[in-house]
Amino acid sequence: MERYDIAIIGTGPAGLSAAITSKIRNKKILLLGKNELSMKVAKAHTIQNYLGLPAVAGEELSDAYKKHLDTMDITITEDQVTAVYAMGEYFGIQAANEIYEADAVILATGVVMGKPYPGETEFLGKGVSYCATCDAPLYKGKTVAVIGFSKKEEEEAEFMAEVAETVFYFPLYKDAVEVSDKIQVVKDQPVEILGASQVEQLKTKNGSYEVDGVFILRESVSPGQLVPGLAVEQNHVVVNRQMETSLEGCFACGDIVGKPYQYIKSAGEGNIAALSAVSYIDKKRREGNK
Amino acid sequence: MERYDIAIIGTGPAGLSAAITSKIRNKKILLLGKNELSMKVAKAHTIQNYLGLPAVAGEELSDAYKKHLDTMDITITEDQVTAVYAMGEYFGIQAANEIYEADAVILATGVVMGKPYPGETEFLGKGVSYCATCDAPLYKGKTVAVIGFSKKEEEEAEFMAEVAETVFYFPLYKDAVEVSDKIQVVKDQPVEILGASQVEQLKTKNGSYEVDGVFILRESVSPGQLVPGLAVEQNHVVVNRQMETSLEGCFACGDIVGKPYQYIKSAGEGNIAALSAVSYIDKKRREGNK
Repeated sequence: MERYDIAIIGTGPAGLSAAITSKIRNKKILLLGKNELSMKVAKAHTIQNYLGLPAVAGEELSDAYKKHLDTMDITITEDQVTAVYAMGEYFGIQAANEIYEADAVILATGVVMGKPYPGETEFLGKGVSYCATCDAPLYKGKTVAVIGFSKKEEEEAEFMAEVAETVFYFPLYKDAVEVSDKIQVVKDQPVEILGASQVEQLKTKNGSYEVDGVFILRESVSPGQLVPGLAVEQNHVVVNRQMETSLEGCFACGDIVGKPYQYIKSAGEGNIAALSAVSYIDKKRREGNK
Repeated sequence: MERYDIAIIGTGPAGLSAAITSKIRNKKILLLGKNELSMKVAKAHTIQNYLGLPAVAGEELSDAYKKHLDTMDITITEDQVTAVYAMGEYFGIQAANEIYEADAVILATGVVMGKPYPGETEFLGKGVSYCATCDAPLYKGKTVAVIGFSKKEEEEAEFMAEVAETVFYFPLYKDAVEVSDKIQVVKDQPVEILGASQVEQLKTKNGSYEVDGVFILRESVSPGQLVPGLAVEQNHVVVNRQMETSLEGCFACGDIVGKPYQYIKSAGEGNIAALSAVSYIDKKRREGNK
């Protein structure tokens, strides 16, 4: 299997900054995320304090980022990472479409807003899933709830509907909902996931739904779930000033490592994480050649 | 005497970033430095990894910074700070023309270089560079000298050797030199940089080398002299991830707090330092009002 030098997970300012600096340092990079980059950036009204780009609209900043990637021939691999495993000599990155390998990993997946639903952590892998593409086949002919935190999850709901018998879709955003007739849209607030050994019911503010599975489609997965064994504190990855995490060869930057949640701060940390990863790889190889 | 909320010392990317974020947070700021901002920025050939401004010339970046300050009505007080004293409730900032007072101080004075080599200042941006990561791409297939003041610069020399045709490496330290065969190690003392419009030659004590570029990788900061009582480690100000120094109310960011010496990293840290200073002042005032 192809082995990358550095896998960067996330296409917000932290991940992109890490990508451009890693590329400049001649590393073979894998940038995993979305071609549309970060929706948080694109939808920001105006950013006043991104030094060098005064009063920049979110969409403009997003375009500037895209241009920067293009200039440097950096492409994004659109895949949903579900887990990162430290294998000793390298990292295994499990995604919806493929498993990737890299010598070093940079986590830049942003912050998970809000607390998990009661029952969410308990039933993870027992009916609770964060990835429709990965787990839909398990729900052939069954009934599932899909909780979408942004409009783009409508696509995931549609995909679920091709497989499952019944799909209840809970849109937790303000945009107009545009889905096919196969999907039952429920405008209600999920509050708890219930069951015995497996998910059986999704309780909402105004009702309850008998389901076999609950797909929770947030912008990002909590870092402790993403990388087993990673030191986490209050939902943030613990790092030092070199952006090193508790796992050797694993670095983190941006909102995932804590406040302030600011674009320029994330971009700065991405740069540090990249240079730390480069340094880690170079040192390991020098030692390997001795 | 007029008392400022936050005095920011330095007009490189760290200081400017701190200034714009402090201003957005409605603080009364004093920005001390030079109207020409940072000469290191202005004279940089091309910066590849300032996310959002692809392949930006140093002069362009400097102009973008000036525009950002203008947009936000931030002015620079041109004065040379000689010492900063923690007075308990506030800081006294002694400068060439005046003494200033502020509740909080942000140090962003960058790397204080030692005595430059003859020709160094003259050829800065014309073959002389302080950053291999930034400028290596300009020397593809060419011949360069890398002057390393500490062992860790060997990594930079290795990176140069991936790009340049010939790398002469001058280790100015006592540790054993461990570099690959691609690098020609020269144990001699550089004394002068010569050329016409561009660098052409590095003169040493015992010889001379025809080169297209000279990378001077120093590390000699003495912020301890600037702020008596400040914890300093190997010429860098000791800070935590909030950019707090050992003195309450005193923050630091940018090159002065350590490597990597990168513009986007400095800008990110300036943002953090500003928000920490704002938080410090707000807390102090809440407590004062009790």
